[in-house]
Amino acid sequence: MTDHAARPATIPGYIDHKDTHLTRLRRIEGQIRGLQRMVETDSYCIDILTQVSAATKALEAVALGLLDDHLRHCLLHAANDPTELEKKLTEASSAIARLVRS
Amino acid sequence: MTDHAARPATIPGYIDHKDTHLTRLRRIEGQIRGLQRMVETDSYCIDILTQVSAATKALEAVALGLLDDHLRHCLLHAANDPTELEKKLTEASSAIARLVRS
Amino acid sequence: MTDHAARPATIPGYIDHKDTHLTRLRRIEGQIRGLQRMVETDSYCIDILTQVSAATKALEAVALGLLDDHLRHCLLHAANDPTELEKKLTEASSAIARLVRS
Amino acid sequence: MTDHAARPATIPGYIDHKDTHLTRLRRIEGQIRGLQRMVETDSYCIDILTQVSAATKALEAVALGLLDDHLRHCLLHAANDPTELEKKLTEASSAIARLVRS
Repeated sequence: MTDHAARPATIPGYIDHKDTHLTRLRRIEGQIRGLQRMVETDSYCIDILTQVSAATKALEAVALGLLDDHLRHCLLHAANDPTELEKKLTEASSAIARLVRS
Repeated sequence: MTDHAARPATIPGYIDHKDTHLTRLRRIEGQIRGLQRMVETDSYCIDILTQVSAATKALEAVALGLLDDHLRHCLLHAANDPTELEKKLTEASSAIARLVRS
Repeated sequence: MTDHAARPATIPGYIDHKDTHLTRLRRIEGQIRGLQRMVETDSYCIDILTQVSAATKALEAVALGLLDDHLRHCLLHAANDPTELEKKLTEASSAIARLVRS
Repeated sequence: MTDHAARPATIPGYIDHKDTHLTRLRRIEGQIRGLQRMVETDSYCIDILTQVSAATKALEAVALGLLDDHLRHCLLHAANDPTELEKKLTEASSAIARLVRS
């Protein structure tokens, strides 16, 4: 945590997992293109729905990874500045609420 | 419903909304590529999370549209064949459960 | 399905699983009271969150069971009346959308 | 945050909102009992599903409230002890993942 907190705030919290997130997002892009091909070729509705659920879960995994990075870095980075911390916590809670509700 | 039921089973239930689903999926592909650019350019975690939630909601909208089409066509298509109907209903319920849990 | 379709519409689609649904709902009521006790006795936040997730999943299971009953009975009951069927399908899709988004 | 961090770890993070959480949980208990009455009196499936979605959303609101309290107190309370903090962050991320997936 001290390492994280020592970083300038302009370096994103997910810097150590940037490649992981990009690899996942490229795979999701492939899933979305696969879904387009399924619709174009009149695939069976239920098979498409199964793939939509898989892509949704993959997106959730990206979100949970980014959020974990964010809590570990951005949030703790602000731990010594009460005003900044309050702002960050409110922001993080809103992001979590959006995820839970999406 | 009679029109739907008269169609051969090989025509997917979403045939009337094929363009809508494709347009949505292409927009989602754009959102996923936008997310990759955000990660590549070190965007702020919370901004990325907001876009992930938007893409997730867009995928859910595709799923709900496909499911509605499926109920209206594929399921009712099978309404006069109890064995086939039982199979279709079990399949539809499983797809709904996957969506609710994803 | 013919048996279901022959029933008067006033008999709910979940009649065969009424006891299952009630048993589950009573268990969920117990979980909610358990959560109250946890908060009253200052239990650890994360332990309470684990129980909230369990209760949420149990509620989802009730919803998915009721929805399956509904598709099997109420929806097919209306299969020969296009106007009624259209109404039921729109209603079912809305209920599914609310579940997916909640 | 300093006030929170100064509290002994045995005081839960949600202490300031204990009454709010209890009031919400009691209302949810009422909703679950209402659902039992609906099933007992053969209410219409879709009306029950609407109430299940409402109860699920209410449970989510409790979870998000507890999580916000947890981040503000328990997590920051551990900010100066890297080992404890690592444990707390992993635990919080797991709780968030369970919520997102439930």
